[in-house]
Amino acid sequence: MSELQEWPRIAVIGAGAVGGYFGGMFARAGAPTVFVGRRHFADAVNSRGLVVDKSEGRERMRVRATTEMSAVRDCSLILFCVKANDTQDTANQMAPFLRPDATVVCLQNGVDNADQVRVAANVATVPAAVYVAVSVPESGRVKHLARGDLIIGPPSERTTHLTDVFVRADIPCRISDNIEGELWLKLLRNCALNAISALGHARYGQIVQSNDARKLMEYIVEEVLAVARAARVVLPGVDDRESGMAAAMELATQMADAFSSTAQDLDRGQPTEIDALNGYISRRGAELGIPVPVNHALFTLVKLAEVELAKSGDIIQ
Amino acid sequence: MSELQEWPRIAVIGAGAVGGYFGGMFARAGAPTVFVGRRHFADAVNSRGLVVDKSEGRERMRVRATTEMSAVRDCSLILFCVKANDTQDTANQMAPFLRPDATVVCLQNGVDNADQVRVAANVATVPAAVYVAVSVPESGRVKHLARGDLIIGPPSERTTHLTDVFVRADIPCRISDNIEGELWLKLLRNCALNAISALGHARYGQIVQSNDARKLMEYIVEEVLAVARAARVVLPGVDDRESGMAAAMELATQMADAFSSTAQDLDRGQPTEIDALNGYISRRGAELGIPVPVNHALFTLVKLAEVELAKSGDIIQ
Repeated sequence: MSELQEWPRIAVIGAGAVGGYFGGMFARAGAPTVFVGRRHFADAVNSRGLVVDKSEGRERMRVRATTEMSAVRDCSLILFCVKANDTQDTANQMAPFLRPDATVVCLQNGVDNADQVRVAANVATVPAAVYVAVSVPESGRVKHLARGDLIIGPPSERTTHLTDVFVRADIPCRISDNIEGELWLKLLRNCALNAISALGHARYGQIVQSNDARKLMEYIVEEVLAVARAARVVLPGVDDRESGMAAAMELATQMADAFSSTAQDLDRGQPTEIDALNGYISRRGAELGIPVPVNHALFTLVKLAEVELAKSGDIIQ
Repeated sequence: MSELQEWPRIAVIGAGAVGGYFGGMFARAGAPTVFVGRRHFADAVNSRGLVVDKSEGRERMRVRATTEMSAVRDCSLILFCVKANDTQDTANQMAPFLRPDATVVCLQNGVDNADQVRVAANVATVPAAVYVAVSVPESGRVKHLARGDLIIGPPSERTTHLTDVFVRADIPCRISDNIEGELWLKLLRNCALNAISALGHARYGQIVQSNDARKLMEYIVEEVLAVARAARVVLPGVDDRESGMAAAMELATQMADAFSSTAQDLDRGQPTEIDALNGYISRRGAELGIPVPVNHALFTLVKLAEVELAKSGDIIQ
C-alpha cells in the first residue's frame, strides 16, 4: 500500500489561521488535503500555494483550495476550523455532502461546537482543545508563533485512530477522558486573556506584567470556575483561583508576544468569537444563577466595540 | 462704575474643551479673561481668536492667551479646568503667583480636586460639578453640543457671589448644601458611562439602547453606591440601583450623540482621567473593603489601552 493510500482524504473547512496551520501540516506530510475557504483564500492558494512561516523558515505547499462545500464529498476526515459563531450555518451547509462514515474534528474555541455539528449534520464529531499561536498576515499565508498541539476525546477507537493520524502529520495530540473539562480549561484561559488583550490593546506579556490586570484575571477566573462548578464540569488540574490563574498565566507566558484572536478580529473590523467565550459564561451564569459581572462586562464591551462607530465625536466633561 | 470694573479679572487654567467653553462665555459677556494653555492653543487664539460653535451659530472672540502661569497674578477668579491627573502639578505651578484673595473654582471630573488645590496653593477653592458636552475639533475652537451648567457649594457668601458672576455670564449655576454628594453623583454618571463609551467605541445613545450595556451600567452603579455608603457620602436623590440608573440614563439621553471624554482621549492617544473615575472607585473600594470588580475591570482596561501598543500582531486560537 502506498503512503498516499494510507492517509484519509482530508478536508479543512474554514481556512483561517488554525485551518491553514493544521491543514498545512497534513499537506506537508503528503496527505491528500483540500481547503474550503473564501474566494480570496482559494485564489491565493491555487495560484501561489499555501505558505507557512515558522521560526525555522518558510514552507510553500501546492494544495487544492475551493469555495465549494461539495469538496467534502470524498473526505473521511474533516478538520472543522470556522469561527464558533459560524458553526451552525457551516454545519448545515456541509451536511448534504458528508460521507456517512466521515469524522468531523472541531478545532474551535468554545465548548459546544462538536455537539452543534453532530446535531446539524448527523455525523460523528470529535471536539479538540487547540493550543496554537498563529496569524494570517495575508490570504494564503500563515505565520506560526508558538505551540500547535491538540487534545481530543473521549477515549475510543475513533480518537485512538485520529491521534495516530495527527501524530503522523507531526501534530502533537493526546486523548483525554475528560474532554469537556479540557474544553472548559481552554475556555477559562480564553476568558481570562482574550477580551483583555482586545480591549486593552495588549500583548499577553504586557497583561501578566500588570498587577491590576492580574487582579482582573483573578475575578474572571473565579467567575468561570463558579459557573463550571454549577454546571458540574471538572477542569483538569484546576479547582480554585490559584490553579486557574496558574493555567492562564502559563499560556500567557508561552505566548507573551501574541495578541488574542479577539484583538485581531476587532482590529480588522471582523466579528469576534466573544459570544462563545465571556459571552458563554455570561449566558450560563444567568441560566445557573451565578453572578458573573466581570465576564458580562468584557462580553458587552467587545460586542459594542464590534459595531465600531467611533473614531470621531464629541467630548463630555 | 463701568461694567468692565464690575467683573473680576478671570484666568482660565487648562484651555481644553471645558476651559474654552466656560472661559468663552465670560469673554463673550465682556469680562477680562486670560487663558493659560499650551503653546499651540495660545498661538491659535492670539492669531485667530477663540471660536465657539453652537447650534445657533459661530462666535469668534478676541481674548488673550498665554503659556505663562504668571498671568494669574492679577486675577481674583481662577477657573481651574485641567484634567484631574494634572491637578497637583498645575496647582503647584500656580501657587507662587496667586493673589491671597483669589478664588479657584475647580471645573473638573473627580471628587477631590478642590481639596488638592487648596492644600497645594493655600487658597480658597470651590468645587464645581460640571455638566456640558463639548469638543475641541481644533486648537482654539470648541464645539458645544449640550448643557453647560454648574453646581457649586457649600452655601456661603463666596459661592453666592460666584453664582451671581456665573449667571451674569449666562452660565446656569446653582448652590448645593451637599456639594460632595453632587460631585459623587457626577462621578457615578462618569463611572457608568465614560469607560463603556471609550472601550466600546460607543456613543451614549448606543450604550443605553443595549440591554447588555444597561446591565453592565447597573453593576457599576451598585458598586459606586456601595463605596459611597461606606464612605458616608449621600448622593442627592440617589440611594439605590434604580435611582442611580435613572441619573445615569438621564445624562446619557441628554447627550445621546456624544462620546465620553475618555473615548476622545483614547482616540487621540492622550492620557485619560480614568484614575479619577473608575480608578478612584477601585482604590476607595480596596481601602474600604468593598468589592468593586467591574469598576476595577474598566479602570484596568482603559489603563492598558492608554499604552496602546497594538495595531498589528498575531492571532492566538
